[in-house]
Amino acid sequence: MTPPGVPFFSSRWVECPPHVRELPGGLPAGFRAAGVAAGIKPSGRPDVGLLVSDPPDTVSAARFTRSATQAPPVLLTRERCTLEGLRAVAVNAGNANCATGPEGFETAARMQAVAARLAGVDGGQVAVCSTGVIGVPLDGDAVERGLEQAAGALSADGDEGLTRAIRTTDAFEKQASLEVELPSGTVRLSAQAKGAGMIAPAFSATLLCFVECDAALAPETADLLLGVCVKRSFDRITVDGQLSTNDTAILLCSGASGVHVAPDSQDELRLGEAMDALLRQLALMIARDGEGAERVGRVVVRGGHEAAVEAVARAVADSPLVKTALHGADPNWGRIVQAVGAALPGAAPLPVDVDIEGVAVCRAGVAVPHDHQDLARRVRASEVEYVVTVPGDGAETEVFFSDLGHEYIRINAEYTT
Amino acid sequence: MTPPGVPFFSSRWVECPPHVRELPGGLPAGFRAAGVAAGIKPSGRPDVGLLVSDPPDTVSAARFTRSATQAPPVLLTRERCTLEGLRAVAVNAGNANCATGPEGFETAARMQAVAARLAGVDGGQVAVCSTGVIGVPLDGDAVERGLEQAAGALSADGDEGLTRAIRTTDAFEKQASLEVELPSGTVRLSAQAKGAGMIAPAFSATLLCFVECDAALAPETADLLLGVCVKRSFDRITVDGQLSTNDTAILLCSGASGVHVAPDSQDELRLGEAMDALLRQLALMIARDGEGAERVGRVVVRGGHEAAVEAVARAVADSPLVKTALHGADPNWGRIVQAVGAALPGAAPLPVDVDIEGVAVCRAGVAVPHDHQDLARRVRASEVEYVVTVPGDGAETEVFFSDLGHEYIRINAEYTT
Repeated sequence: MTPPGVPFFSSRWVECPPHVRELPGGLPAGFRAAGVAAGIKPSGRPDVGLLVSDPPDTVSAARFTRSATQAPPVLLTRERCTLEGLRAVAVNAGNANCATGPEGFETAARMQAVAARLAGVDGGQVAVCSTGVIGVPLDGDAVERGLEQAAGALSADGDEGLTRAIRTTDAFEKQASLEVELPSGTVRLSAQAKGAGMIAPAFSATLLCFVECDAALAPETADLLLGVCVKRSFDRITVDGQLSTNDTAILLCSGASGVHVAPDSQDELRLGEAMDALLRQLALMIARDGEGAERVGRVVVRGGHEAAVEAVARAVADSPLVKTALHGADPNWGRIVQAVGAALPGAAPLPVDVDIEGVAVCRAGVAVPHDHQDLARRVRASEVEYVVTVPGDGAETEVFFSDLGHEYIRINAEYTT
Repeated sequence: MTPPGVPFFSSRWVECPPHVRELPGGLPAGFRAAGVAAGIKPSGRPDVGLLVSDPPDTVSAARFTRSATQAPPVLLTRERCTLEGLRAVAVNAGNANCATGPEGFETAARMQAVAARLAGVDGGQVAVCSTGVIGVPLDGDAVERGLEQAAGALSADGDEGLTRAIRTTDAFEKQASLEVELPSGTVRLSAQAKGAGMIAPAFSATLLCFVECDAALAPETADLLLGVCVKRSFDRITVDGQLSTNDTAILLCSGASGVHVAPDSQDELRLGEAMDALLRQLALMIARDGEGAERVGRVVVRGGHEAAVEAVARAVADSPLVKTALHGADPNWGRIVQAVGAALPGAAPLPVDVDIEGVAVCRAGVAVPHDHQDLARRVRASEVEYVVTVPGDGAETEVFFSDLGHEYIRINAEYTT
């Protein structure tokens, strides 16, 4: 959770839209949730969560990892669920139920069936998510007991419990509850997210995000909003360029506010703005948390081709040289031009421009004299912005990225299984 | 240089061919070299080198970085040299002469002209190489004085001086002198390489390798041999996936041994085997040196498509999760399947097999029971082998990679400019 006194919208790169107000917590109308400790995490901390939307006409949308190594819960949810009509999410942390074969698939199916029975919905209306260690069997009995306990604890302010239950070694919790003024009325929007840090020995990073809204939307609208917002948030962050096996983002819209959001309406636009700000801030919090990161960078790349600006942005954001320079507060633009050059093989000589925190350091591939002391001071901030311009125009993208420091090594190398 | 008592061919992955014998040092017939301190490195260590092949009919071949950000010395050598007829190399360390614009190009041209005058050859016969900090003007006066001094010190056993002069923060020198028995006679083969470690604050890694041979080859044969050997050595290593702006590999063949190596002959085959072993061992030494690495991994990937096995091998070798696990001697195969999955988006569910040091840990994407203690012991070795099998057959590749540890962070983040 955001530290007391710190507003949720804390990044300079995300503006809280004027029609959005932060709430201290709680789920939108129609939702209940809970998180409990079921003994899956060795620490004994909460590790099983249940999220339910009570209205039968709940509408949903979902996005999953594109990895070829997808965990059984992801495969099950994709194969056996009605993704536009989900009403519940069963989730555990401490074990990713990944590389666990047919037995793992059966355990995921059992989670789905148990949660469906407890929530009083069809099996195909329950999404299943897991996060944690890869290649270790998930204890289905423990998860079932946890889900039963969670079902008994479901409440409208269970969002905090759910957030705690999906947390692994996240340094802080990532959730928000918002009130959104739409032309047709007021709705509420909340979300719980986890991940992007390396979690523990033998654990993989997983990004999970559950978004709840009590507006009434058509399934196509929900899918459009989630798709666009995920593309502008979670799809634009990187901690270490490592795609997880279990990433899942789910939007549930209960409709319980009675406010209808029609396609192409001002309501849709305003709700989209709110969801966009919400997911971008959560994504930035994940990048900020990643492996004990101290700084978050944003690289903006402009040029003539979508594929080129994307390749350059990823090359800069995933460059361990750029990331260690960000960690060390070193305005080392030589590493930027190196990463840019590597992203566009065969294009030499490439006239690239680089600006760091608004200071021009490189023009057309050549060093620009600048005040080194001043720039060194600017890159000591918690958020640092890089702008890279390659030839052409019409294309632009951005990637947010964590720095790379000793904590990453400590977490990922020193704690061995 | 290889520590005393340690044979040059020290990796389990490179065999010294039976017709190859290590020499204590020295250049093949027809070559002279020297390295001197010209004040470019702040440390005062040797930083300017000159390599000359005296026979006028010397034959050569060269390979350069594919980066779009190529340094002026690379651009100059590619544009103004007769690459199949090079007779000299002028090189400096401590400054990459990169992102230095037209002035940088002029400085590279001056290095070329000065070296040509000193060596008594045409300008187009002199390759120019630089390695070191990016974006800082290179002091042409200092380099000229250095080249003059080096020209006065040229000798047949100047290979060690040349190796020292191209070194930056390499933890050890990388060179070898070999005697190669060919059916048509005995030739000598030597090489000096540097790099792959992060060099200093604001420095980029650069790979330089100069190879000398006193056999007589046609230019096409020299180009073929260098091309094949570079593809199997320097093209197959990664420290951190970062392509440099200055990478250069040059082969010079003086012909001074009087032994002719004809195309498609047993001589060519044997010389190729020797050069292959030489460059592979040098490449492994560079991976071994990279950023204070403690271990080198080799990932072999087998499957049905060239592009797929290449993508998987790079994804595993460049994964910071795999690299930190290697550093921590953690047989964490979950990170391998994660990296494999990320390399082949959209291919889920992917039946991948993983073996670590000959131990089957994953079959068809599912964990295989194995002796964890035994495997943990095996991955504490200085070289660790991973074999990944994806569907199909007919394609296979390998990548050698450094681990990722605190020293990388220390070098790249803590020393700030």
